[in-house]
Amino acid sequence: MTMSQAPDSAVRTYIEQHRTTFLDDLAEWLRIPSVSAQPDHAADVRRSADWLAAKLRETGFPTVEVWATPGAPAVFAEWPADDPAAPTVLVYGHHDVQPAAREDGWDSDPFEPAVRGNRLHARGAADDKGQVFFHTLGVRAHLATTGRTAPAVHLKMLVEGEEESGSVHFRSLVEEHADRLAADAVIVSDTGMWAEDTPTVCTGMRGLAECEIQLHGPDQDIHSGSFGGAVPNPATAVARLVAALHDEHARVTIPGFYDGVADLTDRERELLAELPFDEEQWLRTAKSYAAHGEAGHTTLERVWTRPTAEVNGIGGGYQGPGSKTIVPASAMVKLSFRLVAGQDPDHIEKIVRAWTATRVPAGIRYEITFAAATRPCLTPLDHPALRSVVRAMGRAFDKPVRYTREGGSGPAADLQDVLGAPVLFLGISVPSDGWHAPNEKVEIDLLLKGVETTAYLWGDLAQNWRHES
Amino acid sequence: MTMSQAPDSAVRTYIEQHRTTFLDDLAEWLRIPSVSAQPDHAADVRRSADWLAAKLRETGFPTVEVWATPGAPAVFAEWPADDPAAPTVLVYGHHDVQPAAREDGWDSDPFEPAVRGNRLHARGAADDKGQVFFHTLGVRAHLATTGRTAPAVHLKMLVEGEEESGSVHFRSLVEEHADRLAADAVIVSDTGMWAEDTPTVCTGMRGLAECEIQLHGPDQDIHSGSFGGAVPNPATAVARLVAALHDEHARVTIPGFYDGVADLTDRERELLAELPFDEEQWLRTAKSYAAHGEAGHTTLERVWTRPTAEVNGIGGGYQGPGSKTIVPASAMVKLSFRLVAGQDPDHIEKIVRAWTATRVPAGIRYEITFAAATRPCLTPLDHPALRSVVRAMGRAFDKPVRYTREGGSGPAADLQDVLGAPVLFLGISVPSDGWHAPNEKVEIDLLLKGVETTAYLWGDLAQNWRHES
Repeated sequence: MTMSQAPDSAVRTYIEQHRTTFLDDLAEWLRIPSVSAQPDHAADVRRSADWLAAKLRETGFPTVEVWATPGAPAVFAEWPADDPAAPTVLVYGHHDVQPAAREDGWDSDPFEPAVRGNRLHARGAADDKGQVFFHTLGVRAHLATTGRTAPAVHLKMLVEGEEESGSVHFRSLVEEHADRLAADAVIVSDTGMWAEDTPTVCTGMRGLAECEIQLHGPDQDIHSGSFGGAVPNPATAVARLVAALHDEHARVTIPGFYDGVADLTDRERELLAELPFDEEQWLRTAKSYAAHGEAGHTTLERVWTRPTAEVNGIGGGYQGPGSKTIVPASAMVKLSFRLVAGQDPDHIEKIVRAWTATRVPAGIRYEITFAAATRPCLTPLDHPALRSVVRAMGRAFDKPVRYTREGGSGPAADLQDVLGAPVLFLGISVPSDGWHAPNEKVEIDLLLKGVETTAYLWGDLAQNWRHES
Repeated sequence: MTMSQAPDSAVRTYIEQHRTTFLDDLAEWLRIPSVSAQPDHAADVRRSADWLAAKLRETGFPTVEVWATPGAPAVFAEWPADDPAAPTVLVYGHHDVQPAAREDGWDSDPFEPAVRGNRLHARGAADDKGQVFFHTLGVRAHLATTGRTAPAVHLKMLVEGEEESGSVHFRSLVEEHADRLAADAVIVSDTGMWAEDTPTVCTGMRGLAECEIQLHGPDQDIHSGSFGGAVPNPATAVARLVAALHDEHARVTIPGFYDGVADLTDRERELLAELPFDEEQWLRTAKSYAAHGEAGHTTLERVWTRPTAEVNGIGGGYQGPGSKTIVPASAMVKLSFRLVAGQDPDHIEKIVRAWTATRVPAGIRYEITFAAATRPCLTPLDHPALRSVVRAMGRAFDKPVRYTREGGSGPAADLQDVLGAPVLFLGISVPSDGWHAPNEKVEIDLLLKGVETTAYLWGDLAQNWRHES
């Protein structure tokens, strides 16, 4: 007998029965210090990939491969559905972790997992091994409780090994294997939710375009007494350029910057307003002393739904102790632009170049360099896969699921780009989990809610999407 | 027999007769590497002071003292006039030099003077030993050709030993010895003239106020994806502050900045316009690619007669290679304000503080620190001592003397300040002399014109000032 939807009690019982083995296995993986940014851990990153590959085979995936890159390897797994008409879902995560050392302020060895209360502490517990790993018990629970031998969707997983060192080879890896990775939807399990008592699903990430502008004035630093006030100063020029980026309403002034950016719909505003947002608390997290941003938008709208122009670094002239009375030879600024749906990084580069060209004063020479850009992602609110995620999460948490977005930018956009599939975000981490910080942890209860969510998800998704599409 | 004015031919003959000894003596002094900025040359700086003191005694100064400071020593000399009603003149110069090493690009040892053609090459040849030393033969020529046993003016000299290392103890030295240094006029021999064929007298130096503004945003660098666009960015704030310093006419916008600044008189503009100024040549010297400054003023007016606000350094956030997507915790700017007659550094500090306070946005904390300021100097064009300098120089060079100013700022202002005496500038160095550069030199012909100028000056000044004042 197979059931497209198992009763919740059966799923919970199954998870409860396998909880100890699941946590023991995860602990074993967490003991491998797969720090991709540190060359002396390269063997550990490879060991982590091999460990995961073995575990995915043990889980039942008929195809599991370790894909080499010029850097750290990724793990690919595939489990076809019985029904060839079932939708294909690609789960994304990563098996590398941030650096960690006991002396950074950890209460125990970051690579010796420690359970304290409901928390599992280890580097990678939340970011991202824990959130990759809940998919293994999730698919087992899905099969066991529905009597299936294969998942209700055609299930693929891609777990990269370089996310914490910039995903340098990720895009070319995805391009190389685009046919193997083809999917109707991508589910990224490398984000989090609003709070322990507020399950949420993230529906978009901002994109990112970055540039550096170098401005050159005199051929060398010159005496400000002899020449000051009569030649253009590149530090003044860079400041005037940066100051001109925003108008008095903190809107970006570059002509064409908002091209394609849609106003939030009433529904989108309502969904954001449903979140129990406390600005004072948010400011404490931001370690900042005031909220400030584009007029006409709330703080959450600003960080999640609006494009920005931000100065990441500025410099020029003498910055040491005391003073040096010069007109500096050069100055520079590093700018990053967060992008939202409708904005195209190539267009942004073009208009930033044009705007800069019109604003640099006579006598100042300049160069502008753009780094590789990341496109924004946005899941349509009425996408059937999104509805399934919300429904599955709601069942697991037994609470209404709210909607968030992510202000940052990530390699998920490459998947959307190359595969042409919508990207959805399913994560159970909470802000207190301490990503990249000492004493990183995952809440064990939430981790098991992640298992439970995926145990419901594949059946719901197969049924729902087939009906609606 | 004494003559208040000797015939020019007698002065020239006297100088020609003593030229060899004069140049040999100067070469002996130039061999002492009195580099005040380098602690391992401290003994050389003391030796230089002692050497000069001995030479001034030999010249005939009845009082010569080496004045210790917490740093390098200064030399003071005094030669009273016969006539107690004669004006008192204080000559200022310095006996320390910039660092120099053969490998910096010198064609010969910087501390082994080399005569090539009409040029004497050595560190300090022009800046400032040569220009101090012409006063020794000058006063001898004045006495010998007028039959005097004492100069026509009450002559004092103060030759400091720390000018090239910031004149750190100069003001307190002057304050300590204010009664000994009291004078009706100060003649600074530490500047230059327009060009070899254009003798000029400098009638003013700009003053200087300097500050550093530190701006603080978040308590630490924060993620520009998570928080960007919703909190104030101190790098943006510093840029907006700097951009607001000048309006579209490159005029400083700080309210009250131009208080007390007089427009140039027609006569002052005419005098500047008499100089054979070539803007293309000036830009090459400035190593700059355009002239830019306060609207309504020429380049020379801008650098010599107008106050400025200049960025000497700006910094904040990530300035290394590649990118870092942060909202930086802090940013800073170092500003210097060149001041002209009528501006008071204390007032400037007050209005810059007030202006900054009104412009730093909410959520950004800041500190502003001012360094010790230097006041501007301006010699009235009708001052009798200035007329004497112009007349004496005109006789020595047999050419019309033009008027310049100095855009920089120097310790001369301390003499004006503490002693309450007008400051005049008498220098024979030319722009090609290479101050602070390899192969520094002095034109021997011009050096002897300096001797000749002072040989005429004391008699002219005593006669002229007595008549006119």
